Amino acid sequence: APNIVLITRAFRSQFVIPDFQDFIKDIEEMYWTAKSITDGKVASYIPQLARANCDNWGVSVCTIDGQRFSIGDVNVPFTLQSCSKPLTYAMALEMLGPDVVHQYVGTEPSGRNFNELVLDHNMKPHNPMINAGAILVCSLLKTLDKPEMTLAEKFDYVMSFFSRLAGHEALGFNNAVFLSEREAADRNYALGFYMREHKCYPEKTNLRECMDFYFQCCSMEANCDIMSIMAATLANGGICPITDEKVLRPDSVRNVLSLMHSCGMYDYSGQFAFKVGLPAKSGVSGAMLIVVPNVMGICTWSPPLDPLGNSCRGLQFCEELIKRFNFHKYDNIRYASHKKDP
Amino acid sequence: APNIVLITRAFRSQFVIPDFQDFIKDIEEMYWTAKSITDGKVASYIPQLARANCDNWGVSVCTIDGQRFSIGDVNVPFTLQSCSKPLTYAMALEMLGPDVVHQYVGTEPSGRNFNELVLDHNMKPHNPMINAGAILVCSLLKTLDKPEMTLAEKFDYVMSFFSRLAGHEALGFNNAVFLSEREAADRNYALGFYMREHKCYPEKTNLRECMDFYFQCCSMEANCDIMSIMAATLANGGICPITDEKVLRPDSVRNVLSLMHSCGMYDYSGQFAFKVGLPAKSGVSGAMLIVVPNVMGICTWSPPLDPLGNSCRGLQFCEELIKRFNFHKYDNIRYASHKKDP
Amino acid sequence: APNIVLITRAFRSQFVIPDFQDFIKDIEEMYWTAKSITDGKVASYIPQLARANCDNWGVSVCTIDGQRFSIGDVNVPFTLQSCSKPLTYAMALEMLGPDVVHQYVGTEPSGRNFNELVLDHNMKPHNPMINAGAILVCSLLKTLDKPEMTLAEKFDYVMSFFSRLAGHEALGFNNAVFLSEREAADRNYALGFYMREHKCYPEKTNLRECMDFYFQCCSMEANCDIMSIMAATLANGGICPITDEKVLRPDSVRNVLSLMHSCGMYDYSGQFAFKVGLPAKSGVSGAMLIVVPNVMGICTWSPPLDPLGNSCRGLQFCEELIKRFNFHKYDNIRYASHKKDP
Amino acid sequence: APNIVLITRAFRSQFVIPDFQDFIKDIEEMYWTAKSITDGKVASYIPQLARANCDNWGVSVCTIDGQRFSIGDVNVPFTLQSCSKPLTYAMALEMLGPDVVHQYVGTEPSGRNFNELVLDHNMKPHNPMINAGAILVCSLLKTLDKPEMTLAEKFDYVMSFFSRLAGHEALGFNNAVFLSEREAADRNYALGFYMREHKCYPEKTNLRECMDFYFQCCSMEANCDIMSIMAATLANGGICPITDEKVLRPDSVRNVLSLMHSCGMYDYSGQFAFKVGLPAKSGVSGAMLIVVPNVMGICTWSPPLDPLGNSCRGLQFCEELIKRFNFHKYDNIRYASHKKDP
Repeated sequence: APNIVLITRAFRSQFVIPDFQDFIKDIEEMYWTAKSITDGKVASYIPQLARANCDNWGVSVCTIDGQRFSIGDVNVPFTLQSCSKPLTYAMALEMLGPDVVHQYVGTEPSGRNFNELVLDHNMKPHNPMINAGAILVCSLLKTLDKPEMTLAEKFDYVMSFFSRLAGHEALGFNNAVFLSEREAADRNYALGFYMREHKCYPEKTNLRECMDFYFQCCSMEANCDIMSIMAATLANGGICPITDEKVLRPDSVRNVLSLMHSCGMYDYSGQFAFKVGLPAKSGVSGAMLIVVPNVMGICTWSPPLDPLGNSCRGLQFCEELIKRFNFHKYDNIRYASHKKDP
Repeated sequence: APNIVLITRAFRSQFVIPDFQDFIKDIEEMYWTAKSITDGKVASYIPQLARANCDNWGVSVCTIDGQRFSIGDVNVPFTLQSCSKPLTYAMALEMLGPDVVHQYVGTEPSGRNFNELVLDHNMKPHNPMINAGAILVCSLLKTLDKPEMTLAEKFDYVMSFFSRLAGHEALGFNNAVFLSEREAADRNYALGFYMREHKCYPEKTNLRECMDFYFQCCSMEANCDIMSIMAATLANGGICPITDEKVLRPDSVRNVLSLMHSCGMYDYSGQFAFKVGLPAKSGVSGAMLIVVPNVMGICTWSPPLDPLGNSCRGLQFCEELIKRFNFHKYDNIRYASHKKDP
Repeated sequence: APNIVLITRAFRSQFVIPDFQDFIKDIEEMYWTAKSITDGKVASYIPQLARANCDNWGVSVCTIDGQRFSIGDVNVPFTLQSCSKPLTYAMALEMLGPDVVHQYVGTEPSGRNFNELVLDHNMKPHNPMINAGAILVCSLLKTLDKPEMTLAEKFDYVMSFFSRLAGHEALGFNNAVFLSEREAADRNYALGFYMREHKCYPEKTNLRECMDFYFQCCSMEANCDIMSIMAATLANGGICPITDEKVLRPDSVRNVLSLMHSCGMYDYSGQFAFKVGLPAKSGVSGAMLIVVPNVMGICTWSPPLDPLGNSCRGLQFCEELIKRFNFHKYDNIRYASHKKDP
Repeated sequence: APNIVLITRAFRSQFVIPDFQDFIKDIEEMYWTAKSITDGKVASYIPQLARANCDNWGVSVCTIDGQRFSIGDVNVPFTLQSCSKPLTYAMALEMLGPDVVHQYVGTEPSGRNFNELVLDHNMKPHNPMINAGAILVCSLLKTLDKPEMTLAEKFDYVMSFFSRLAGHEALGFNNAVFLSEREAADRNYALGFYMREHKCYPEKTNLRECMDFYFQCCSMEANCDIMSIMAATLANGGICPITDEKVLRPDSVRNVLSLMHSCGMYDYSGQFAFKVGLPAKSGVSGAMLIVVPNVMGICTWSPPLDPLGNSCRGLQFCEELIKRFNFHKYDNIRYASHKKDP
């Protein structure tokens, strides 16, 4: 189906990035620069991730007008892993409202040295971007939103929602990863039981099902192309730029972007917010969702990770992006003049 | 002297807030709503602050075009206190460059529960917006920038710089507050010595002078009108909208705004970033600097503080501001349509 | 069978407490004083403990000569709970040696405020008297000592060992408590998985079996009379004063007593060591094992607990004991003259 | 003056160590074994300590009967440093009583990893054996006991008291060390101010004087011979075995020994209590006070320290001591038969 939004705007010459061809040249240059990086190690706690190909490297861009550009391994599927966290959080906000969600999970970074401390001073997980918070968000989706659904039904229901964020592109599921994650998840079970001890979950939560549901969300598969559309939907206030469907309310998007900004890059989040200043979320499969609000969504994918768990090539790409363009949240529009305003 | 920038733009009708009169009406309503609040207690650790008048309440606005509006006690002087922190940080960035500054002080929030931990995992203060970091920034200004100056000369030099941020309005100094702060500062001396133990300061730092310098910066006086111009200079990429003088580089401003965003409101910083999404800095005198990047600077002042040390009326004003206008960093420009785009 | 040791010594009039009748009078007085206490609440996390009778109160004494005295509810069975920790630790020391055991678990108190921190700086549980350490000790007994045994065989094997500490008195098992403990044990599962994440266990450990084994040890039943013999065996350098059987090596006993001394009374351990100065271990069933080295073993039992989890009547009994007798580890033998040397 | 006690007991042949000549042979062997150790580094934070001679090594023993033996550099003076902590604590207990003292300072180890946390959950220093607690004990001696004394008078008063613990042997004072300590004491000033912020001191405390007093106590000088008498006084329930003077009450001694036992060896305290099981206190000058309750006091001195701040040769000596003799607190009297009972 032709992208109606794109065509309409094209006729009006009202694109957010007027000279897209020029912009593509920059992206290509940045792609090739990052490709030469050989730093990092692939995640190895489960065999499926340990077998990842270090050479894989893809970048997909989707503007809020629906203009798209992709380069590299953009159609190779990877598991969402932690990139599912902003998605389940967004869905929970949309279905249950921010007041219900934040009755159970906080809104603040946990502070860099204290990832051992699972719960904040209110005895809630610090935010939905860390494992404890994401497990809790899964329990909300499982227990409070359509509680009558079986786990299988709930999984389909959530996957359909994610698919709407991606312009109805189909997501996959990697069952081997799911089974391995479930097996290797000592830390997550520890978090899960610890939170149950502290009565963090809504009543009637079945911890075992909730954990399975969490691992299933982490084990969904997509690729750079698909994920860039999701990021673009977030950049566009919740309206998918491909389908023009309103998937999320603006206030849900605002909350998701706020927490991706402050908490999306593991223990590097604070420095990333300072240096790059864009909402982003990384996952151990090497994927990175990057949102340039009101402009575009980007997805990069490259399995080798730095010691904090972020994709080495993805990080390098982001830092270069912010050097070339006035995308940092606090770049001044008028006076950061050595930077391009694409 | 007439504001040339203002007049020029007025002729061109290119103001960032086209209907300023309409905008003023909102500000006035918000002012009167906040005025009725009687929550909070004035700071009491020194007598000068304890004697503050709870009724004082002022709001000043200055757009990046130089349009201004003030209401309430906007000419009553107050001491800068922690509102001096983004100013000394900005000056240090400008004079010494970000690489030198961040060799000594971090760029991340410290995490809410752990304000007791003075230093981050690199044995640096977490950021320049907390006391430890601000003391360190003062040591940088004292020891690395024009080290030949006496303490008196350095004080004048810094005050002149702050004045340029405020369109050359004159700042005052409250000696009684300075002497009291110095006397009551057990925590700050503890921080100061602790950092010296850990060799945080540049070589040749004289701790006693550095502490005095810090207390002097906290004891400078200004009012809402003056501070709103400073905030507007930050909103305007470092160029003072009143004088058109380029006081700060865009990258210095970017760094200041990033850290005001994540660390400016004491232990409420995380929640403020989530809810309000604007760079701001509060001080125990009841002042609050608020920056709407590319739009305007705001200063509110009201002495009664909430338990975390932020001005009760100031906080209420900010939350109302973000309800009415699409100023939250992650408000979508196109689709947050129930909000005004002033 | 007559107690040969007792008889032999009686003939020689060489008892450690020459005037046992006089000593009994003190114990009786202390018993009745403590009986009037109505403070504390019974543990309520499982129904079996919540149904405990607050009036139950028993005290049993067994000297290293085998002289015995009991008063109150000394034959009512209770579950060992945390009183099993010094016993499994003693058995592990005996079977595997201190070097193997302390390769996996530390020897120091964890510090009062930091019970949340499961592991010490070597990534081992702090000591065998806290849950994490006791779970680990169970994994050692299960995995390293006679690994060919089934879980059922291992349970019998351990229970027999405990019985030897108690002069071959028979211990019981409360299956309802076991099932409830296993169900309610969120914290313990969290600890268990957290330690597996950090590779704390010996290779080939089956976590599920190890946890079950731990809960089974906690669910063994004994009474004051039986437990006082165990305490006396510890007081007597590992030789049971009833059977004269050498159950533990002196160095095993030394290690057990050292850690009961510093870590046996939950978060009250530090204060108990300071005030009472005797090795002791309490459990949530209200039992308390108390060792007066080279003199006697004592067991008290009363279900109501103080907020830190120690039996209220038991604590009161200990404090009175140390007021009357020179039993504090650092009571001077010659000059603490206002105290009795029984 | 002849030691009356010694002579009297000698006539009665009632010495605690009947064959002292045999015991001396063991001590000599242990002395020579430890002498060959070349591990460790002398403290270097002040020049006076950095110049210490690594070869110095002395051991002095004084039994509760007043029998004495010395070998090596037992007359070379060294500064007390942290070995003054049990002495000021003992004096505070004696003069002010345990209730007053422990209203201001705790009775528990702080836990190994958390020496950064100055105060316990009651906002008191954890115990009198760490710097924060010892500074506070100095403030008690200065402010609550004979507050009318000048600092000079108070110093003489305290030094006289210490001298009584040492059989009236004269202590010295190293002014160069005092001045250097005061200069280099960033951490201690940080602690001092931090505690003042938290209102830890008694009213009317002059922090500057209190800190000076603390540094002066650390800068007193003694030698192995003198310190072994102090240790013997502690071993003997507070009665000096040389003069038969009652210097401390038995309950004061009990408290001092309890906290030396649990907190006397810096971050090694927990392991030392487990392995050696004797009350001891080490200082950065390389001295170590060791108390064998009811038997003897020992002082060892050797400047090279291990990374935790304890004398390498001193530690080795203690471990050997406990291997040869049944001195560990929980060594069984009857059955630890491979060990000597001297």
